Amino acid sequence: DLYSETSDTATVLAQADEVELALLLESLPIQERIILWQTIPDHKKLDVLIEMRSDPRAVLVSATEPEQWDVLFTDIDAEDLLELADSLPQELFERAYTALDRLQKQYYTEADQYPEEQIGHWISHDYLVLPINAKVRDGLRLIRREMPRHTDVIFLINRSGHFSEAVPIAKLHVLPEHLHLTDVSLDDFPIISAVEEGQLVAKEVLLSGFGALPVVDENEKLIGRIDVTTAAELMQEYYEGQIMASAGMDEDEDLFSPVRKSAKGRAIWLGINLLTAFVASAFIGMFEATIQQVVALAVLMPVVASMGGIAGSQTLTLIIRGLALKQVTSANVGALLSKEFKVGGLNGVIWAVVIGVVALLWFNDPLLGLVIGIAIFLNIIAAALAGVFVPVILDKYKIDPALSGSVILTTVTDIVGFVAFLGLGTVFLL
Amino acid sequence: DLYSETSDTATVLAQADEVELALLLESLPIQERIILWQTIPDHKKLDVLIEMRSDPRAVLVSATEPEQWDVLFTDIDAEDLLELADSLPQELFERAYTALDRLQKQYYTEADQYPEEQIGHWISHDYLVLPINAKVRDGLRLIRREMPRHTDVIFLINRSGHFSEAVPIAKLHVLPEHLHLTDVSLDDFPIISAVEEGQLVAKEVLLSGFGALPVVDENEKLIGRIDVTTAAELMQEYYEGQIMASAGMDEDEDLFSPVRKSAKGRAIWLGINLLTAFVASAFIGMFEATIQQVVALAVLMPVVASMGGIAGSQTLTLIIRGLALKQVTSANVGALLSKEFKVGGLNGVIWAVVIGVVALLWFNDPLLGLVIGIAIFLNIIAAALAGVFVPVILDKYKIDPALSGSVILTTVTDIVGFVAFLGLGTVFLL
Repeated sequence: DLYSETSDTATVLAQADEVELALLLESLPIQERIILWQTIPDHKKLDVLIEMRSDPRAVLVSATEPEQWDVLFTDIDAEDLLELADSLPQELFERAYTALDRLQKQYYTEADQYPEEQIGHWISHDYLVLPINAKVRDGLRLIRREMPRHTDVIFLINRSGHFSEAVPIAKLHVLPEHLHLTDVSLDDFPIISAVEEGQLVAKEVLLSGFGALPVVDENEKLIGRIDVTTAAELMQEYYEGQIMASAGMDEDEDLFSPVRKSAKGRAIWLGINLLTAFVASAFIGMFEATIQQVVALAVLMPVVASMGGIAGSQTLTLIIRGLALKQVTSANVGALLSKEFKVGGLNGVIWAVVIGVVALLWFNDPLLGLVIGIAIFLNIIAAALAGVFVPVILDKYKIDPALSGSVILTTVTDIVGFVAFLGLGTVFLL
Repeated sequence: DLYSETSDTATVLAQADEVELALLLESLPIQERIILWQTIPDHKKLDVLIEMRSDPRAVLVSATEPEQWDVLFTDIDAEDLLELADSLPQELFERAYTALDRLQKQYYTEADQYPEEQIGHWISHDYLVLPINAKVRDGLRLIRREMPRHTDVIFLINRSGHFSEAVPIAKLHVLPEHLHLTDVSLDDFPIISAVEEGQLVAKEVLLSGFGALPVVDENEKLIGRIDVTTAAELMQEYYEGQIMASAGMDEDEDLFSPVRKSAKGRAIWLGINLLTAFVASAFIGMFEATIQQVVALAVLMPVVASMGGIAGSQTLTLIIRGLALKQVTSANVGALLSKEFKVGGLNGVIWAVVIGVVALLWFNDPLLGLVIGIAIFLNIIAAALAGVFVPVILDKYKIDPALSGSVILTTVTDIVGFVAFLGLGTVFLL
């Protein structure tokens, strides 16, 4: 419980690493956050900023005096700046960029060619590399000089800088020094292309069994690596992004963002959902005369809408996960549709009967029971179909189904549910 | 795109690793999954099963002939069995357990003392360890003999087996052989307690910068380690679990689970939500007479319910994330409540006006506009408060708010919304 310790700020600051400090700062209301920020030693500040989400970070960037930045930027490198760039005003960005040495400037430019969705944006350069004709003794000399974290292999490159092979460092200790490294290199070492999707690469790196994998550009040239720590951060951001998107929010959302900013951000999502609610209302409005005569229909409307929405969101959630893992493809979508249709049919029948009987007993009206039963059945079927089609189509057009899928689905199930229920009511109950 | 390659099954099988095969098998309908399973070489089968989610895995466990298992269990170890245990019928579990050697049986029993939520359940034992008085030359001898993956330090233990220190392997190459390892050990190396929560430990391991962290029991005895690959799997399972829970499903859900099983699993969630929908209906039913006279109320009901539900789910999602990261605590929950109340108040006013005006224009009734405006305002405020209180209270009672939070929240916003809207309608519009 980081927060409760802030009474003893000095202790926290002395012991906490940058990850803990970032979490703590994010959990504080704005005023207290700024106060704590000012007590953090300058040499830790940049690392803490880098670990923070961009919204809560922006508060601290604004609260930092202009003259302080030169100190904070003393040791900044390309990776740091790539992480911070979006949070810095133009003037500060330029000061940070100027503080990079020539090599780091080149790294920055190279990585910045790739958009944030591609793994090339997130590469680091602290790997061990040797020419392809190097020997075991060269490898031993290299690891005695430096040993970056998460480094279990040496990358071998050819004269054009193309990635060629990877040699496990563990083998260097047990082999004759004159042996060529290519003789002990690993078969089929995984290589990442810089344009690959970040979250898929993250998973590959984390499950590879290696501390980091090499990243190559479109010409097979080795341009960097992704280590397990970067991969874990990308994976966490991806999943948090998915979860926040389901409520129309951003992964970077600040627990204590200023009221106006927060309200504005959420207002957009409320507005979009309001439109779909008005669409549902418009469809209900077509049956005003029916409702006036059979008020039980109005009473039971939430049941029809809820069952469709819930059934649809189950299929939707399953399909979105499958799409993200590339497990739902054009090859199996037909089989999935058929299975979800059957599941929907079975649950449709069961709940049609249950709800029909409840409605019959509640309002003592067998025809009302029949009407709601049929409406529930139709709506659960529609929900199953929409739960498959909506995310698959959105994904095809590169729209994130985690964000917009549920709005569209709910619109479908609301319309189908209300029209079926009130339409059948008009036919059978008037 | 793994699936589309199945036409050339032989190629896939020859090149794919166990992770790819597991993903591919999960993506296949049951019949095709079993056919592919039977073509996978026996020596790969256990590793593939281990990588699969438990529901799709169960299909393959059932489809494997009893006499095959002895071959599959040839090289099984404690970690494998801990992963598989839930999927194996009792008889198979016993055969697997029997196949373990004495040490592995001991490992199994030790880890199985800890429930799946605790990190002690997921430890592995392939670490490098030396007594606390060992020297650099002992370290060098050890790493020449074996080098488990993700191993960048040697653990030092005292005579009682308590974890003492960690020594970076990289330093061994540059130090005199007679030096004591304790002289070059790392300060403040992180230690994990076996009873800690899996997903929090996973994050700590992944961000630690080390390939694995030591796990100790309640007596500080070193009992295993968690490496970054295990941590990544735990993190992925945690997030997938959160996402699936939001739709009342399990992380292990099979894309192609048999229709009956799938329908049954989802029926429970549909039933729970049905109860809350009936509660909402019951409240609407209290106002039947009002609705009969002012049908516009029935038409606009989905708008009131939707705005409350959406606003509430935004606060809920933010708070659930904060709770999971331990960023929402008793110390800042008051400040959060106040901020969410203000955000709700601001959005409440804005949308009350917008929706009030639309209702006025649509039904040409200023009083109706006033009534829905007030109801929207009250419901968005209630949603903000419930969005904070519901997950905080559930979390306090160790109930996962990702699963039940949205049902309870929707019940609150439905009741508040309908009662406010129809109640005010009864007062002002009759």
